[in-house]
Amino acid sequence: MYHLDPNIQNLHRIFDQNERKDYLRLDLNENPGGLPEEFIRKVLDDITPQFVAQYPETLHFTEVLAKYLKTDIHHLCLVNGSSEGIRYIIQAFTSKGGRIVGVVPSYFMFQVYAEMYGRNFVPVPYTEDLEMPVSHILEHLTAETELLILLNPNNPMGNVYTEEEFQAILKACKEKEITVLIDEAYHYFYPNTFIHYALTERRVFVTRTFSKLFSLAGCRLGYVAGHPEDIQYVQKFCTPHNTNAFAMKFAEEILENPKILSDLISHFEEGRAYLLQALEEQHYPYKGEAGNFLFIKPRRDAEEIVKKMKENYGILIKSYPAIGKLGTCLRVTIGEKKYMERFMKALLELDSKTL
Amino acid sequence: MYHLDPNIQNLHRIFDQNERKDYLRLDLNENPGGLPEEFIRKVLDDITPQFVAQYPETLHFTEVLAKYLKTDIHHLCLVNGSSEGIRYIIQAFTSKGGRIVGVVPSYFMFQVYAEMYGRNFVPVPYTEDLEMPVSHILEHLTAETELLILLNPNNPMGNVYTEEEFQAILKACKEKEITVLIDEAYHYFYPNTFIHYALTERRVFVTRTFSKLFSLAGCRLGYVAGHPEDIQYVQKFCTPHNTNAFAMKFAEEILENPKILSDLISHFEEGRAYLLQALEEQHYPYKGEAGNFLFIKPRRDAEEIVKKMKENYGILIKSYPAIGKLGTCLRVTIGEKKYMERFMKALLELDSKTL
Repeated sequence: MYHLDPNIQNLHRIFDQNERKDYLRLDLNENPGGLPEEFIRKVLDDITPQFVAQYPETLHFTEVLAKYLKTDIHHLCLVNGSSEGIRYIIQAFTSKGGRIVGVVPSYFMFQVYAEMYGRNFVPVPYTEDLEMPVSHILEHLTAETELLILLNPNNPMGNVYTEEEFQAILKACKEKEITVLIDEAYHYFYPNTFIHYALTERRVFVTRTFSKLFSLAGCRLGYVAGHPEDIQYVQKFCTPHNTNAFAMKFAEEILENPKILSDLISHFEEGRAYLLQALEEQHYPYKGEAGNFLFIKPRRDAEEIVKKMKENYGILIKSYPAIGKLGTCLRVTIGEKKYMERFMKALLELDSKTL
Repeated sequence: MYHLDPNIQNLHRIFDQNERKDYLRLDLNENPGGLPEEFIRKVLDDITPQFVAQYPETLHFTEVLAKYLKTDIHHLCLVNGSSEGIRYIIQAFTSKGGRIVGVVPSYFMFQVYAEMYGRNFVPVPYTEDLEMPVSHILEHLTAETELLILLNPNNPMGNVYTEEEFQAILKACKEKEITVLIDEAYHYFYPNTFIHYALTERRVFVTRTFSKLFSLAGCRLGYVAGHPEDIQYVQKFCTPHNTNAFAMKFAEEILENPKILSDLISHFEEGRAYLLQALEEQHYPYKGEAGNFLFIKPRRDAEEIVKKMKENYGILIKSYPAIGKLGTCLRVTIGEKKYMERFMKALLELDSKTL
């Protein structure tokens, strides 16, 4: 008897972009510059035929990561990009038709996974001023809610939740027995984290990725942090050997070379400082407290800017449909200063002429 | 309201082995020798910081693979090891409590995924002579069956299904509207394939991996072949960017260098010929028509042999509990002749002394 899951039959997916190689990529919040060439070469020099041919081993890297996070391996589950961890948390901790609350817009896969597994995703919208008051989130946390998902800082607006705000959220979630997932994809670009809650409390998870500051998007690596009693269920969902040897090797070398990380952060900060100043000088409205991206209101139509930026300047950025009173906006990845200069030059030229 | 999926709560998982690096690994059907050192170096010479930092692109590699398979990209879905594809097929094409038929023993994840998603896995057992008559499979194909999963060649016995046998299976599955999944993890070690059915018929899938002959287990890469109308649903289940850039790069270089593949096959065949002859000469009962492994009956207790082989000889192999009249057996990966010589020497020494 043939069967086809009705959720997957009806699901709409947008697949990964291709042919981005020849462009300056400021559209997916990768690091456009990447890691230093000599570091890449040094790491790859160690690769043997056995390293490539053998099923990847996770124990050693998980120990390195646990030490770095000042925890132990039982609090961590490695995943093939944090998106895989998000998916397993939804599968394990919500039921068919179960209520999932999340902010919109945010990382689009939260909603896609909810739909994939027949969950009821309830969006908390931004205000007209593009603010996300915590009271709005709290109002949506009903007794039937099974999971709250927050990306912090959130994408694309770059707003963050303070410690006090998060404590209020956590208190409500405990009272109503709601599992909490904080996606910290954009951690490292700003110092705050809620991982200590995930490492100590039950039913609180933090996901992180090596695709953003760590500049390893091509390798695929992320992790879920949580209480061992909860993390075991995420682990049990994992496909065997879900994380590859190259990703773990690169991540280990970065974790063990603090200078690599601090250089990545200072390059990012230099790029961000430049871009903020340029936008202020040119009177561009923008949003972005934290994260390696800014949400910018161009003078002309955002979709047209995206199109011309690609065609005429070889730069990829993203546009967002009208949210609140800013109207259509651009989301631009922050990279090293030289890339931000290229972007600003193009933006000013495009905004000053009739398209 | 807290929720925990009861299937995942009760699921038993065995996690990936660690600390295998210092051993001769004949336990997981990898290629113990791996790819030529100079080939590895040549491939890695091309790696740039952008390659590592950018989300992997799948289009180019999928085109290379499609050309190699004489099909088009709409018949293929890349996955992070074929196990990920098997999982999505189970999720898409079977229902809660739905009947899945499969041979036992076989790849253990068929049963694990069925349990993970609350499906009803119905095992077809081997005969006392360790044979798998097709009539036994056909008997299990009831009108309620949603999916038949077969590994061909099957692991650990190494038996294969002939074209005629598979046609009889396919006919029954069409009549009863049963989706068919053939896992060809051990293709390339023998020439037969049923991929042409997957590429032309509805509701027939073939999964393949780059972990075995292609010697890329550390990289993680596999694919699902099927009809475009069906493959779209497997694709829609995929986690974004599920396949990494290193895996696709290595796989592409192998597909475009036929000599690499033919050398891998001839090294394997030389190792297999040696092992078969040595077992015959020493009168060891064994099974294994095809695949890069043999199922061997040792003279002494198989579990003890596995233990001593690791402790005293630094060789990893697997034992299987008593199946049929052969009793407990060893499964040994076939690699280059030099590794097979090391294994045979150890086996003969262990079997000739009191453990």
